[in-house]
Amino acid sequence: MLDIAPKFQALLVFIEHRFYGESMPFGNDSYKSAETLGYLNSQQALADFAVLIRSLKQNLSSEASPVVVFGGSYGGMLAAWFRLKYPHIAIGALASSAPILQFDDITPWSSFYDAVSQDYKDTSLNCYEVIKGSWAELDAFFIHKEGLAEISRTFRTCKNVRSIYSARNWLWTAFVYTAMVNYPTQANFMMPLPAYPVQEMCKIIDGFSPTATKLSRVFAAASLYYNYSQTEKCFNLEGEADAHGLHGWDWQACTEMVMPMTCSEESMFPPSSFSYKEFAEICMEKYKVKPRQHWITTEFGGRRIDQVLKSFASNIIFSNGLQDPWSRGSVLKNISTNIVALVTEKGAHHVDFRAATKEDPEWLIMQRRQEVEVIQKWINEYYLDIKQG
Amino acid sequence: MLDIAPKFQALLVFIEHRFYGESMPFGNDSYKSAETLGYLNSQQALADFAVLIRSLKQNLSSEASPVVVFGGSYGGMLAAWFRLKYPHIAIGALASSAPILQFDDITPWSSFYDAVSQDYKDTSLNCYEVIKGSWAELDAFFIHKEGLAEISRTFRTCKNVRSIYSARNWLWTAFVYTAMVNYPTQANFMMPLPAYPVQEMCKIIDGFSPTATKLSRVFAAASLYYNYSQTEKCFNLEGEADAHGLHGWDWQACTEMVMPMTCSEESMFPPSSFSYKEFAEICMEKYKVKPRQHWITTEFGGRRIDQVLKSFASNIIFSNGLQDPWSRGSVLKNISTNIVALVTEKGAHHVDFRAATKEDPEWLIMQRRQEVEVIQKWINEYYLDIKQG
Repeated sequence: MLDIAPKFQALLVFIEHRFYGESMPFGNDSYKSAETLGYLNSQQALADFAVLIRSLKQNLSSEASPVVVFGGSYGGMLAAWFRLKYPHIAIGALASSAPILQFDDITPWSSFYDAVSQDYKDTSLNCYEVIKGSWAELDAFFIHKEGLAEISRTFRTCKNVRSIYSARNWLWTAFVYTAMVNYPTQANFMMPLPAYPVQEMCKIIDGFSPTATKLSRVFAAASLYYNYSQTEKCFNLEGEADAHGLHGWDWQACTEMVMPMTCSEESMFPPSSFSYKEFAEICMEKYKVKPRQHWITTEFGGRRIDQVLKSFASNIIFSNGLQDPWSRGSVLKNISTNIVALVTEKGAHHVDFRAATKEDPEWLIMQRRQEVEVIQKWINEYYLDIKQG
Repeated sequence: MLDIAPKFQALLVFIEHRFYGESMPFGNDSYKSAETLGYLNSQQALADFAVLIRSLKQNLSSEASPVVVFGGSYGGMLAAWFRLKYPHIAIGALASSAPILQFDDITPWSSFYDAVSQDYKDTSLNCYEVIKGSWAELDAFFIHKEGLAEISRTFRTCKNVRSIYSARNWLWTAFVYTAMVNYPTQANFMMPLPAYPVQEMCKIIDGFSPTATKLSRVFAAASLYYNYSQTEKCFNLEGEADAHGLHGWDWQACTEMVMPMTCSEESMFPPSSFSYKEFAEICMEKYKVKPRQHWITTEFGGRRIDQVLKSFASNIIFSNGLQDPWSRGSVLKNISTNIVALVTEKGAHHVDFRAATKEDPEWLIMQRRQEVEVIQKWINEYYLDIKQG
């Protein structure tokens, strides 16, 4: 956005989502209970954007200026939904890696982890098989007397771990996030990473002697994700996550953003199912609320999206990279002439929103150029409408 | 709706709006304070409809059945807004007499009472002038020692009135509602009325001898509205209004449904202005809330509606009759091929929703026939889409 704003002589406004960052409606009490957290939801956030944009335009005496909304990931969902619900405020939306179809039973529940697995399998079948086999090795430590101490040694933890699950989650996170940020150039999304990090991980895994344990190989691969800069002497497998940020999403997941996910037999993760009942019990215990499994599709739709939106709605770009596992829950085909899908085979999680670099491959330059052209078309049409009164 | 449902083999569902009738979310405490009344608003009502329709279709195993929403007046606004916000749930909306542009400064604030006045003026210039002149006669009683007793006699009240304003409101209501229900056949909307009651009122006013006071004439005209069935021996000018129904709307008017109205010099009512400050003070006193003057246009749009909706949205009929003063705040011109305005010169407040009778004029039969044709087209298109997958 910083790259293209000057082309449009645009004012860039980054609106903070309520209950995140400094936007706490009840100060330090905002996260206290369901009573206050009830106001943390996507509909209220969208309404905030509407009120803020309108008041901003009034204050800046720019009420005739067209507004285009941008967002990636959850922000991409919000951008698409904002255009759908507030077409009188935004003339269009660029929704990058927005999995608006990852709800209810629209997208198969196993597709996210199948897509992660495909990334590794496409890189190296051996890599995929080693990762797939590593979980059993890890599970063997459950019954091992010295299991936790052994795991702590293998994973070079700063403190002895208290649970095998910590190692499991640590590996899991590394593989999933690396697939998401499988960018064509060096990255710094959550941490520094090389270009095409999935390939780099698989290189490490494939480079071991065949006698090495699978666990030692996946540990080495995961270290690339956690320690690419080579500054860590040991790892904190049980460290605290960023309290507010994750807590906020956790609440949203327990109320409206219910995205059921399972691991199929074909994935590189241990097979697992999704039980709404169990999930609801966890949320009940944490927040005293029941998740509303069908709410997002009731409020924003998703089922038969092509048929519903082909003659209703306009001016949305859904951009996706197929390396990104979230792309499976997004819109990957054009719905109409002005609700379009820009899909790249090698792209990852909202790669189009990264700053342009000299190393950017042609397909990424092209994708961004198309986005600018489409947005320019929306703006031209808007001014033409104004002129014709 | 009862007339045309069989044509469509349709199930008719009348959904009660939360906080009205028996739909009290907090039982007897629902109207207790702003804390509970906060949940009485149009967005929550629309979300209720979405949840109810979805669950109803699931329970009836009719998830593929198309849904069309109907509404008149405020219900018409809800119908139009429902199609705009929930296109995935309703394939179209028939919004009859829906003044969705009566907010903020989209429609001139004086147009409502100008339209009422026009109805009387078009019927008889003398009638309009008598009504216009009657307010001064009424006001003269303010300084009259025996004013209240005099008024009570003139207006044949059951009990002596406590305020001149009661008589003023009583007349005012009669003239406004009669304009709204200026139907071509006998009515029973709020009370029994003859066909074209504005004409009947003006006949009464014009029939008096020129020496009669204006007040006695307008009283006689208003009696037509309050006592067409001739059963009343006296009138209750200070009777209680239906507590819940009006109280609910009153709350909505004090929070979101702010429709500023003024009376111009040209109207038949005493000139008046609208002061947001004064209005806000009244609401503050009543409910401890401030009205949100720009909220409806922020949430639902309205400004530049043709330009915003011509390439966004589809399948809405805005039907209006120009006798109805609310028509001035509605959509009176086609926006696109599938957002259409059906306007009749002689129609009044959602006249198309009245049951068909043998006396119905040709223009009303035509209007209803067009509505059925358009709805049939939506349904055909929907099934064609389904078939083509």
